[in-house]
Amino acid sequence: MLKDNSGITSSGRIRHRRKSNEIPSEASKANGNHLLVNDQNKYRSMLIRAHSSVWMIGGFALVIYMGHMYIWAMVVVIQIFMVKELFNLLRKAHEDRRLPGFRLLNWHFFFTAMLFVYGRILRQQLVNTVTSDKVLYKLVSGLIKYQMVICYFLYIAGFIWFILTLKKKMYKYQFGQYAWTHMILFVVFTQTSFTVANIFEGIFWFLLPASLIVINDIAAYIFGFFFGRTPLIKLSPKKTWEGFIGASVTTMVSAFVLANIMGRFQWLTCPRKDLSTGWLHCDPSSIFKPEYYSLPGWFPEWFPWKEVSIMPVQWHALCLGLFASIIAPFGGFFASGFKRAFKVKDFGDSIPGHGGITDRMDCQMVMAVFAYIYHQSFIVPQNYSVEMILDQILRNLSFEEQRALYIKLGQIFIERQFGEL
Amino acid sequence: MLKDNSGITSSGRIRHRRKSNEIPSEASKANGNHLLVNDQNKYRSMLIRAHSSVWMIGGFALVIYMGHMYIWAMVVVIQIFMVKELFNLLRKAHEDRRLPGFRLLNWHFFFTAMLFVYGRILRQQLVNTVTSDKVLYKLVSGLIKYQMVICYFLYIAGFIWFILTLKKKMYKYQFGQYAWTHMILFVVFTQTSFTVANIFEGIFWFLLPASLIVINDIAAYIFGFFFGRTPLIKLSPKKTWEGFIGASVTTMVSAFVLANIMGRFQWLTCPRKDLSTGWLHCDPSSIFKPEYYSLPGWFPEWFPWKEVSIMPVQWHALCLGLFASIIAPFGGFFASGFKRAFKVKDFGDSIPGHGGITDRMDCQMVMAVFAYIYHQSFIVPQNYSVEMILDQILRNLSFEEQRALYIKLGQIFIERQFGEL
Repeated sequence: MLKDNSGITSSGRIRHRRKSNEIPSEASKANGNHLLVNDQNKYRSMLIRAHSSVWMIGGFALVIYMGHMYIWAMVVVIQIFMVKELFNLLRKAHEDRRLPGFRLLNWHFFFTAMLFVYGRILRQQLVNTVTSDKVLYKLVSGLIKYQMVICYFLYIAGFIWFILTLKKKMYKYQFGQYAWTHMILFVVFTQTSFTVANIFEGIFWFLLPASLIVINDIAAYIFGFFFGRTPLIKLSPKKTWEGFIGASVTTMVSAFVLANIMGRFQWLTCPRKDLSTGWLHCDPSSIFKPEYYSLPGWFPEWFPWKEVSIMPVQWHALCLGLFASIIAPFGGFFASGFKRAFKVKDFGDSIPGHGGITDRMDCQMVMAVFAYIYHQSFIVPQNYSVEMILDQILRNLSFEEQRALYIKLGQIFIERQFGEL
Repeated sequence: MLKDNSGITSSGRIRHRRKSNEIPSEASKANGNHLLVNDQNKYRSMLIRAHSSVWMIGGFALVIYMGHMYIWAMVVVIQIFMVKELFNLLRKAHEDRRLPGFRLLNWHFFFTAMLFVYGRILRQQLVNTVTSDKVLYKLVSGLIKYQMVICYFLYIAGFIWFILTLKKKMYKYQFGQYAWTHMILFVVFTQTSFTVANIFEGIFWFLLPASLIVINDIAAYIFGFFFGRTPLIKLSPKKTWEGFIGASVTTMVSAFVLANIMGRFQWLTCPRKDLSTGWLHCDPSSIFKPEYYSLPGWFPEWFPWKEVSIMPVQWHALCLGLFASIIAPFGGFFASGFKRAFKVKDFGDSIPGHGGITDRMDCQMVMAVFAYIYHQSFIVPQNYSVEMILDQILRNLSFEEQRALYIKLGQIFIERQFGEL
């Protein structure tokens, strides 16, 4: 079973100190009534964990303050660390020594995936950044036009490289590594690159979901620490119903409040349409404009407010909160199960008291995908607009085509009027 | 090593009959001068193979004749067979018996992937099909708008189902299966669904690449059979340089000729913009309009033609031919290596003499992706047009928004004129 010397798992909930051979779920049942708050040994590791947490949150806040490009850079750094941790998980040093250059291939695929994913997500921003310089503009739009082909040939180059370096008796290891590399890159990139799409839609859509996961984790830890008695799921024996429910309530309340606070800053709500780092101004989208609800008459007379102002985005935040507290923890369970299946304690040891970066990212990744899909499905359509299509017309059509479109559109209006008569 | 009783691999090139323990590359080196055409034992299995091939090609031609929807159905059937073969590859009956319903989960993910992929590729066609019925139109556009959310929740349901049915001591098997399922669905769907996108862009873009692979395979088989002496690659010891080169030349010539023939049929060149099966008419795209080149004066006088007509698409066909004969075979090498690594002879036994469906699809999948990317990068931009954007405007904007766009566009033209003065 898992070795656990620190007494605290990386998955944000609490575990009892125990001998490494004890079967976890039995142990927690037996000690169900033993509150961790009374266990003095816990405090030291809690301190280490709290210390790293403060540093992480501080660094995170600084990056948010610095803006979109820096947040993107942070995401890339996290991706590199995660991929590195996961690559190493199934790596066999003995086998690798017989396959010179085989590791390099992984990073070739990593680089290709990066070029592909960020090229697609940020192509619009990139184009907008270079519009003032005609030569650069031509170059960039050419590169973007052929981006898929370029990435495809980079990939094919790696694919052929792989096949040509297949070595007898190593086939199984090599194919296993190939599959594993693709699996990792697929999981890491599909999950984390959504984050980058969110960032440029407005930091809000990245910051709120990420904060909710952190809040949910910390709240579950604290509630579990002080009140945890009833085990939640066999897979993660240290997670308790008390932690789960306490965290859910905390997260929902935080979501509602935080959305209101974050929604006031244009720095967080405006989309960034190019790759610059300057100050942002925009006409805030309607979901960030407060609506006023008058309170019913039965509110006590000494109550100072007669009406409350709520931004529509706060209702959306509740959905995000619900997901962050109910579904996202399954990302953690999945990671626990995975670590258990492959008999590793943590994915790495980059963060003292927390384990690897990957250990901290399990729920974040699930959340990032949801936030992106939620934003695309329920927020964007309201903004789907004249602006977007106008943009397309001016960007993709030649002057003559623009004129042709204008004329056709005019004709359609005329036909329509006749149809109505 | 591989067991090989039929004497012919599924990978379309020829192998010598040999004891199963013989090391393949040594064997082929030793027998390098032994032409297969002289080996009487080969003829029986060649006959079986030829027989299935004729049936397959006949069935294929019928489906092409019937049209887009039937070709799509054929692709789906192939996908189901492939996924089934691949699922079974790592399946352990003993373990499965202890995990009731675990197999069902795979198909749940398969269904979800299908809904996601085809929903995205064919959304435009689906909308165009139902535009005449207002109620249906509203329903369909609602479904499409929330398609991502629907698929996401189907996926999350499977994910939670997986976690909740994790069984002690089975973790490793279950996680392995989970990873394998995702890997298969990812490979099969990314590779084959491009095919469907190609089909609706015009059957030409599906039929030509697929034919080139078949021609390349058959030509390599025949050239290898009659002239094969020099081994090509250790991984597939039965492939020879003679087969490879003969096939390349055949494929290039066929590509150039076939493109001209196929380019004459509107049934093959017109895109299909809805989900109907009726006859197709369209103004053929400029790449299908023949251009005339007069032959230089030194052509012999008795030569009957003074000029040749070449469609621009024929030059593109040469690129496809080049890829089909040089790069696509690596798909076959990859599959050979994979089968070798996991010690299976074929992926299945669906087609007599050929092995499983997957064995026939290895190069086809590599080709389909290339054809799609090639079409998107080098063909579509020429057609990127006023029509497309007009379509978008009429579909996505309300009447008022359409008017607003019209007015803004008019203003921009006026400003531009002032800028020029």
